[in-house]
Amino acid sequence: MSQPVNRVVLAYSGGLDTSVILKWLKETYNCEVVTFTADLGQGEELEPARAKALLMGVKPEHIFIDDLREEFVRDYVFPMMRANALYEGTYLLGTSIARPLIAKRQIEIAKMVGADAVSHGATGKGNDQVRFELGYYALQPDIKVIAPWREWDLTSRTKLIEYAEKHQIPVPKDKRGESPFSTDANMLHTSSEGKVLENPWDEVPDYVYSRTNNPEDAPDTPEYITIDFEKGDGVALNGEAMSPATLLEALNGLGKTHGIGRLDLVENRFVGMKSRGMYETPGGTIYHAAHRGIEQITLDRGAAHLKDELAVRYAELIYNGFWFSPEREMLQAAIDHSQARVNGTVRLKLYKGQASVVGRKSPDTLYSEKVVTFEEDAGAYDQRDAAGFIKLNALRLRLLGRRDGR
Amino acid sequence: MSQPVNRVVLAYSGGLDTSVILKWLKETYNCEVVTFTADLGQGEELEPARAKALLMGVKPEHIFIDDLREEFVRDYVFPMMRANALYEGTYLLGTSIARPLIAKRQIEIAKMVGADAVSHGATGKGNDQVRFELGYYALQPDIKVIAPWREWDLTSRTKLIEYAEKHQIPVPKDKRGESPFSTDANMLHTSSEGKVLENPWDEVPDYVYSRTNNPEDAPDTPEYITIDFEKGDGVALNGEAMSPATLLEALNGLGKTHGIGRLDLVENRFVGMKSRGMYETPGGTIYHAAHRGIEQITLDRGAAHLKDELAVRYAELIYNGFWFSPEREMLQAAIDHSQARVNGTVRLKLYKGQASVVGRKSPDTLYSEKVVTFEEDAGAYDQRDAAGFIKLNALRLRLLGRRDGR
Amino acid sequence: MSQPVNRVVLAYSGGLDTSVILKWLKETYNCEVVTFTADLGQGEELEPARAKALLMGVKPEHIFIDDLREEFVRDYVFPMMRANALYEGTYLLGTSIARPLIAKRQIEIAKMVGADAVSHGATGKGNDQVRFELGYYALQPDIKVIAPWREWDLTSRTKLIEYAEKHQIPVPKDKRGESPFSTDANMLHTSSEGKVLENPWDEVPDYVYSRTNNPEDAPDTPEYITIDFEKGDGVALNGEAMSPATLLEALNGLGKTHGIGRLDLVENRFVGMKSRGMYETPGGTIYHAAHRGIEQITLDRGAAHLKDELAVRYAELIYNGFWFSPEREMLQAAIDHSQARVNGTVRLKLYKGQASVVGRKSPDTLYSEKVVTFEEDAGAYDQRDAAGFIKLNALRLRLLGRRDGR
Amino acid sequence: MSQPVNRVVLAYSGGLDTSVILKWLKETYNCEVVTFTADLGQGEELEPARAKALLMGVKPEHIFIDDLREEFVRDYVFPMMRANALYEGTYLLGTSIARPLIAKRQIEIAKMVGADAVSHGATGKGNDQVRFELGYYALQPDIKVIAPWREWDLTSRTKLIEYAEKHQIPVPKDKRGESPFSTDANMLHTSSEGKVLENPWDEVPDYVYSRTNNPEDAPDTPEYITIDFEKGDGVALNGEAMSPATLLEALNGLGKTHGIGRLDLVENRFVGMKSRGMYETPGGTIYHAAHRGIEQITLDRGAAHLKDELAVRYAELIYNGFWFSPEREMLQAAIDHSQARVNGTVRLKLYKGQASVVGRKSPDTLYSEKVVTFEEDAGAYDQRDAAGFIKLNALRLRLLGRRDGR
Repeated sequence: MSQPVNRVVLAYSGGLDTSVILKWLKETYNCEVVTFTADLGQGEELEPARAKALLMGVKPEHIFIDDLREEFVRDYVFPMMRANALYEGTYLLGTSIARPLIAKRQIEIAKMVGADAVSHGATGKGNDQVRFELGYYALQPDIKVIAPWREWDLTSRTKLIEYAEKHQIPVPKDKRGESPFSTDANMLHTSSEGKVLENPWDEVPDYVYSRTNNPEDAPDTPEYITIDFEKGDGVALNGEAMSPATLLEALNGLGKTHGIGRLDLVENRFVGMKSRGMYETPGGTIYHAAHRGIEQITLDRGAAHLKDELAVRYAELIYNGFWFSPEREMLQAAIDHSQARVNGTVRLKLYKGQASVVGRKSPDTLYSEKVVTFEEDAGAYDQRDAAGFIKLNALRLRLLGRRDGR
Repeated sequence: MSQPVNRVVLAYSGGLDTSVILKWLKETYNCEVVTFTADLGQGEELEPARAKALLMGVKPEHIFIDDLREEFVRDYVFPMMRANALYEGTYLLGTSIARPLIAKRQIEIAKMVGADAVSHGATGKGNDQVRFELGYYALQPDIKVIAPWREWDLTSRTKLIEYAEKHQIPVPKDKRGESPFSTDANMLHTSSEGKVLENPWDEVPDYVYSRTNNPEDAPDTPEYITIDFEKGDGVALNGEAMSPATLLEALNGLGKTHGIGRLDLVENRFVGMKSRGMYETPGGTIYHAAHRGIEQITLDRGAAHLKDELAVRYAELIYNGFWFSPEREMLQAAIDHSQARVNGTVRLKLYKGQASVVGRKSPDTLYSEKVVTFEEDAGAYDQRDAAGFIKLNALRLRLLGRRDGR
Repeated sequence: MSQPVNRVVLAYSGGLDTSVILKWLKETYNCEVVTFTADLGQGEELEPARAKALLMGVKPEHIFIDDLREEFVRDYVFPMMRANALYEGTYLLGTSIARPLIAKRQIEIAKMVGADAVSHGATGKGNDQVRFELGYYALQPDIKVIAPWREWDLTSRTKLIEYAEKHQIPVPKDKRGESPFSTDANMLHTSSEGKVLENPWDEVPDYVYSRTNNPEDAPDTPEYITIDFEKGDGVALNGEAMSPATLLEALNGLGKTHGIGRLDLVENRFVGMKSRGMYETPGGTIYHAAHRGIEQITLDRGAAHLKDELAVRYAELIYNGFWFSPEREMLQAAIDHSQARVNGTVRLKLYKGQASVVGRKSPDTLYSEKVVTFEEDAGAYDQRDAAGFIKLNALRLRLLGRRDGR
Repeated sequence: MSQPVNRVVLAYSGGLDTSVILKWLKETYNCEVVTFTADLGQGEELEPARAKALLMGVKPEHIFIDDLREEFVRDYVFPMMRANALYEGTYLLGTSIARPLIAKRQIEIAKMVGADAVSHGATGKGNDQVRFELGYYALQPDIKVIAPWREWDLTSRTKLIEYAEKHQIPVPKDKRGESPFSTDANMLHTSSEGKVLENPWDEVPDYVYSRTNNPEDAPDTPEYITIDFEKGDGVALNGEAMSPATLLEALNGLGKTHGIGRLDLVENRFVGMKSRGMYETPGGTIYHAAHRGIEQITLDRGAAHLKDELAVRYAELIYNGFWFSPEREMLQAAIDHSQARVNGTVRLKLYKGQASVVGRKSPDTLYSEKVVTFEEDAGAYDQRDAAGFIKLNALRLRLLGRRDGR
């Protein structure tokens, strides 16, 4: 709080917490607050955020509400999906991938309005503070960053509500008590953590899920769909061309219906602790399976295996908040290079929690029935070549075996 | 066929193909044939293989039928599962992991009976020839290897059957025609490929599956189970202690019931072609999920992420047949080192094709509710530390941002 | 020899071996031979190759002698140097990197002259056959490849010379006896292997070296030079702008004088055996050191460390002959992405076998004296940030320490 | 400074800085100070440190001076050398590898004397604070760490000396002025950084070097030596058996004479900045070359290449201070597994700054003259095997070439 702050751009949801932050920033820094509310497809009305900001004294021209849905899917979700990125083997990185875009837009607004600081509502224990702030610093190295949760003394819900009431910040009825868990949502996923989820032995209660049907309540009949890919990106559902966000939204609908994309995970945060989270990634889970499916026939083995090795690192970088880093961009360059011919159609079966690839075809297929067939192959492959192949692959093992005599 | 062969140990299933090979070896090499039939839990009677071998003139003392089930699961499947190995992101390596054990036992028998050659029934287009032969050469560098499918002129089913009939080899009725696909089975999985599966756009017909119920026919009610782990290996199901093979067998039963572990895949073979396969790994799929689940709370992040990076290479090595290689052993040493405290219990929900981890607990948990809690943590974690953590992680990005001015 | 061949493009040096091959191809395949001789800066006159080919009946329009020096350095050596590629920690890949270019040009010529086959003079034990042929097949999948050393029965020097004499192929006096070692040369390096080098305990005799002075005979006074880089590639020596090949040639001169770039190595060949080689890479060794030097101040840590990890794989791919593979191209895309700001000047000291970086400067430096200084830094770096940085990096180790009680 | 401290173990060199720290700790925390001085072969008298500590009021039984030389080389330097670890391609990690041992011993002493805190004299900008403290926390998670340079207000040399004089701490004459650079030393290396070295364009002045002759002043005649290895560790010099520390000390003598092991580097610190350092690693440079030499003939290719890939990460872990981490231990397990047969003798030539391997032999050699020879090999290798080997390695590239038509 030492440095004076003149004008700060706040990532503002319109909810209680960021409203308290809005007030607190003004009080603490005696500065002007600019609010930025992003539509990332989280499925909430955003105009109330405008009204609330106005009410709290933010100038109309300092209220930014931006629809970033297409940019989000096109420039963040799809590039990540090209990598088949999974954090710790299972998590589709739904929260992680949204943070860089929010940070980028916040910095753009800061430049536009001449702000010298940015602020966010992420706590000091989580990954999001890192993701936001690494983004801020990478894009505007000299920006001042204010992270109220690390600075203020509103260390309990009670104190927060007292503060809100004292400053005439409306407190919604359902926020009076502690909510039973904490959530984040965007078009790719909804996450929940904390409170009732904190014991990793306890099953996630069904009421925590909001984006997917319980598989047990999903239709008893499977549904078949197709997704078309061009250069590694989805372009059509069931033959109908769609923009990135439209496609993901449509897959979200299908995933919801069939109860697809639930994940109960204990993960390792970048800040060094383990946390238990619940994720729902309905459309993303289907898309991920489909992308692997189309790669199976269009990607060369060398490219595919290298991608699989790089994807672990790539996922870790995104999880840790290093989207705007040279090493993420280098990996992206490698991954994108591999996608030039990842074209074709994948057919999937959706059924009670599962999205299974059941067919794939492509004008660019590398699969050759002629070569692989158990039938006569008319010389496409000479089985005797395998003898030499094995002999030379074995040579070093034989030299070793002679020495070590296992 | 140039080198004289005196005595050959044949990996013998008792089926038509290896019976033809048995005869062909005698005819072609004028050598003595020793048969070796392994019980890897493939679920077939093996005594008929003895009768058949006797009938074809193999000496009683040259017929080896070994129950390798416990060794298979304990020394091959479990070590591989410690790595969470998946080939090309999805395949649990059920065929690959059985081949080294067969090769090892074949070589042991060769040494016992003083054989100078070994033989197998794998074709010249597949991976199994490589896996067998790399095993042979690693364990007995100077062994002579005979791979009839690469040598003989029985290039069609018709010729094979003609040969059998000519040599009084009984041809089962159902083998007269071409079978509609080719299979391999052991306790970990059953695979099918070829023929009706060769077009990767066509859905795998339901009759191809033999080890799992169709998820649509699986029970409408989920079943909950627990698996206990010690040092990274499963030791009990629902609290009941079990040997490795017993545990996997029990999980196979559960997986079958709930339709778990079906996989339709186009994969890249080591010999350079793509092939389409269908895999059923009922118990292995459950076990794999459970192992990841117990690691989530007992494995440190550094260990876990390193494992994830190594696992890609490890899986490739096993797929390609390099089980008996120094690099696989090096990776195994690293992986095994990480498992010393992977103890505890995982709870899973089995339902219509899915095995989902819903709870995990451990005396060795690294998960700390006290640290992670959204509530007051009594100083377990100082949120202000995060500021410095982020600042120094950001330092290089800021220097870069100043230079590059994104 | 089964398939008929109509016209074959031979990689032809004009020496005895490839002259014998030329004749043998005609005799064996009754085909037309097109010769291709590449100037890769190996420092030999190439016109005699034309005369010799004419003499042996090759049509004038079927003799190709191409100066590929600039292409070689610009499109092969420099891209590889961007990666700081070293095979097995030490070898600068001088032979490996030339093979793909020869293969590419051979295929281009084959297309021009309508040839259906290509041929080379590499033996069946080495890496070069693999590098040539993988290049051929990648660029022209249906080409017929003839590798005489794997096919013919000229298995000794004596037989080769008899064959030459029988066919009126001039045998140079110094080729009558066995040469004491085998060499390959291009602008990047000269390699020697075999014969007197075959015992890896014996020191390489001084007469084997041809491209560098013995360090003991090099000048007693060091020489200082500068190399300028733009986007990761060398562009000037001592301030004088030079083309890629000119620069490398000039560095070769300096390296020769100062005895720089000798390497005695036992390496692992792709075909599975170990071989002992001697390499001289005078200019390349200087250039490699200089490139690392300029990267030290212009490359971000994240990029630099990722490059170091990728470089091991990259070097292996080039060594094994996979230049024209998707995975090499993916890695190249990542590496090239990192070089955009690798600009500046490196100063080196050359002295008796060593090229040492002694200074580097760049308009794009990321080195900040202001940040790093032991003196007062005017707030460029807040030392207290380090406390939080360490605390959070330590958090997982502390949780682990509490559990494991080392 | 908030928490009370009762007794603190200080890493104490006896020099001015740590003497000031000793005093400052007592004053600031009103606590008892225990001093620990390690003999890591830095080549200084350590008894004066005892006298000084006594003078400053440390109880005799609270002064620990330990000779850790053998432990240092045996348990830290040699295991690291097994990995051929180089940070950023060039740095032998001489400082990094000493810190964990100091931290370990400090914690052992803390436990012995019942101390609740530890302290060190590393600054807030460097890597050493991280290495010390990660060690402390890993080994004693609840220890209190005091890092005076991050806490106090002695921000300039002048203030430090004023403080010393005020508290009757003797200030050596040569410490009155600023020393022209900052150093660290142990048996493996001496490092210098800061001040006159801060401009990376300026050549390191010769007076900065203290452990090696200038190569220009080194003998004009090369010296040949042999080093024997057992299980990857050096055991003898010129045939004479030596303990680890004795061997390294002897190699240091040789390296000094011949001017070997100087390195001028701009490196990336873990805390995010670039720094320029000068390192002298005389014996370590020779040893590193020798270890690679013996591995060349005794290590299988698969093991060697995997090691090379892991070594990059391993070096980064050690540099960053993660010696006591599960991931370093996992890598060590893999590396150590590879060394079981790394036995034999390496011959090196030492001459004016260079240590070159010129010969290697081993009872466990995998090098086979019989296989590699250009002469008749009596069937040790069938050149025709190479055809199949290449054909199958090329298969995927051919399928790709047919599709992509390069």
